[in-house]
Amino acid sequence: MDTLSNLINALRYLPGIGPKSAQRIAYHLLQGDKNREKANLLAYHIQNAMQNIHHCLSCNNYTENDYCRICVDNTRDSHLLCVVESPSDVLAIEQSQAYRGHYYVLMGKISPINGIGPDDIALNGLVQRIEQKNVKEIILALSPTVEGQTTIHFIQSLLKPYMLSMTQLAHGIPVGGELEFLDAHTISSALKNRGVLCE
Amino acid sequence: MDTLSNLINALRYLPGIGPKSAQRIAYHLLQGDKNREKANLLAYHIQNAMQNIHHCLSCNNYTENDYCRICVDNTRDSHLLCVVESPSDVLAIEQSQAYRGHYYVLMGKISPINGIGPDDIALNGLVQRIEQKNVKEIILALSPTVEGQTTIHFIQSLLKPYMLSMTQLAHGIPVGGELEFLDAHTISSALKNRGVLCE
Repeated sequence: MDTLSNLINALRYLPGIGPKSAQRIAYHLLQGDKNREKANLLAYHIQNAMQNIHHCLSCNNYTENDYCRICVDNTRDSHLLCVVESPSDVLAIEQSQAYRGHYYVLMGKISPINGIGPDDIALNGLVQRIEQKNVKEIILALSPTVEGQTTIHFIQSLLKPYMLSMTQLAHGIPVGGELEFLDAHTISSALKNRGVLCE
Repeated sequence: MDTLSNLINALRYLPGIGPKSAQRIAYHLLQGDKNREKANLLAYHIQNAMQNIHHCLSCNNYTENDYCRICVDNTRDSHLLCVVESPSDVLAIEQSQAYRGHYYVLMGKISPINGIGPDDIALNGLVQRIEQKNVKEIILALSPTVEGQTTIHFIQSLLKPYMLSMTQLAHGIPVGGELEFLDAHTISSALKNRGVLCE
């Protein structure tokens, strides 16, 4: 049955879905009118999202309009700019409810081993954004990986002429994490940056 | 952003996908032209499957035509009929490559606790099928659960007048399973039905 095999194969495009799960999902979607209705609704929402969601002209975050809702929000602190790798990082930081500034999404990180150089990510837009808006502090919220650190160093030298305050996310023990499972680098960072309880 | 939230919510219709996974999948599908193309293809295949796949007129298995490819296969043994709960069970048995007869899908099992009685599953079709075709042996391949056993007992009395040979799947230790993790019922069945190695 080709239509069913095509559906099973297409479900494997979803990250984390293997052949067995794809099979299970396909049969589940076909089972009963209610499930079929939901499946059609899912197909509609996928097409709708692919057609209407694009990148914010100012920060590269996902939006249906020219500018995303964070960029047009006047109550947010426009002096603060948080630089992240991808739109999903914006979501993660927003869900923490600990940040009220603006964002800039690089759409990747410098990774020489994968052939991704400074010209392949949205660094030009970052410079433009800083020139156009009155940004005073840049928070570089990139992953603490070799690629993330390379990107941080590159941005540091790129933005040197603008004399901005520049910070990066603190390294340390994740809340809820257990010491014994953490790597030596994280523990050494957490010790170096230890916080004062009382003096 | 409503379109994105709608997509994330719709992805949760998929079995085994929670809120975090749905979010991750949505952002993955939006990332880059290649992923977006695949997402659109997935939406197309979902719609295509929902529109064209229906139940085989003879056995209830999924098919795009009036009769499924197993029912129209003349090389299969038409004296053998394997009764299963759902089309995914047909797939599981077919993948074992240990069966060359025909199937009949009940589309459920009797479950008084969920309000599903004998009239709510496709038992009439089973009787018709047996009356029309020259079936000699019925294999009741239902789950070894209370509902499955109830359904087996009901079918046994329903088909008594037809004087057919009727069997059910063997209970025992799953191949690759470890004894210490098996329940007492399975072990007791496996002991009762033990096979002879040498006499």
